[in-house]
Amino acid sequence: MLGFNPKDLDIYRKAFTHRSANKRDKEGNPMNYERLEFLGDTMLSTIISYHLYRQVPSGDEGYLTKMRSKVVSREHLNELGKDLNLITYIDSKISKDSFGENVHGNLFEALLGAIYLDRGYKYCERFVFRKVIEPYVDIERLEGKIISYKSFVIEWCQKEKKAFRFEVYEDSGNESVKHFSVKLFIDDKVIAKGRATSKKKAEEQASKRAFYALQDKMS
Amino acid sequence: MLGFNPKDLDIYRKAFTHRSANKRDKEGNPMNYERLEFLGDTMLSTIISYHLYRQVPSGDEGYLTKMRSKVVSREHLNELGKDLNLITYIDSKISKDSFGENVHGNLFEALLGAIYLDRGYKYCERFVFRKVIEPYVDIERLEGKIISYKSFVIEWCQKEKKAFRFEVYEDSGNESVKHFSVKLFIDDKVIAKGRATSKKKAEEQASKRAFYALQDKMS
Repeated sequence: MLGFNPKDLDIYRKAFTHRSANKRDKEGNPMNYERLEFLGDTMLSTIISYHLYRQVPSGDEGYLTKMRSKVVSREHLNELGKDLNLITYIDSKISKDSFGENVHGNLFEALLGAIYLDRGYKYCERFVFRKVIEPYVDIERLEGKIISYKSFVIEWCQKEKKAFRFEVYEDSGNESVKHFSVKLFIDDKVIAKGRATSKKKAEEQASKRAFYALQDKMS
Repeated sequence: MLGFNPKDLDIYRKAFTHRSANKRDKEGNPMNYERLEFLGDTMLSTIISYHLYRQVPSGDEGYLTKMRSKVVSREHLNELGKDLNLITYIDSKISKDSFGENVHGNLFEALLGAIYLDRGYKYCERFVFRKVIEPYVDIERLEGKIISYKSFVIEWCQKEKKAFRFEVYEDSGNESVKHFSVKLFIDDKVIAKGRATSKKKAEEQASKRAFYALQDKMS
């Protein structure tokens, strides 16, 4: 899931230890993910800031701040943690069902903190690019210009009198969570693929990729 | 002042360009330090967070957040910018005297953003260690346990019946800003030295160093 080999597994264990497990380290300090969450929260903010800075040269400080807060919103972080299914790894005395929504985002942040401590800034940045920026962050959508890439693609095909279809199949591989793969055909040619934990997300991803692949023609 | 060779001078020029200079880059985007300030603000926060995480293994998330906000307070940032005398480099249509206090902190943040873009995370971290953490961040003081190292040292000397004196001399070297050097003698032996832009700060720095040098005896 990480895309690299972790060096110090203890740090990752900590990142999945809930305070209810009541664990302590050798020095007697509480051993749970809350301190790592503190670290991961600020790492994420910095990495996203740099990405936005580079991506939008015309955006002023206010614009960049607003866009960043959309990406690192509580709701978005929870979605990220859920997609990675982080809660399956949690060590806790509380049953998994009785956690609120925020545990997903908290675990995601703690995992980022652990990656930073284990492998440093560059690895953390790469992980955020692969898991957050590449699949979820796009300026057009953040700016509200494009709400759904799928609708955008459909409208474009209708206008251009092109046939399109989405072919969806379940494709969970070795993963415990259900996954869906999607192929988007335009005029019987595969234009883009997507894969995600829901049919809707996979279609959206394929549409987004089609949007970028066909950008010159579409805009 | 940086302690390393900058590669891309243009980035640093931008870090000192005020919006009143009304400059634009080749693409026509406003060219001033505000976007770099956005970047530097988050870099500083991350670097300080990591330092606190490592320094205080017993501090929980709430403690770490509180300590961080003390270090990155507006007042503290302004002090840092002033100590480095950053405003002398500003490119602006406004006279230097008519800026408010915050320009100092803003320039400091913009400079951090420039260092990150020019040389990357590690250089930025080293700069923050050398200019912020080493001279200014200490947990005892942040926690309010020690308000002034100088008073602490004086009280200790009086209690232990030791003679002490501070020897201060002006020592501006090649710098345009006035600097003071201080030697702290205890029982006629130089225990620690300090150097800063005011007599008071230099004495405090020497006292802090004496505190750490004599820690076993003092506590």
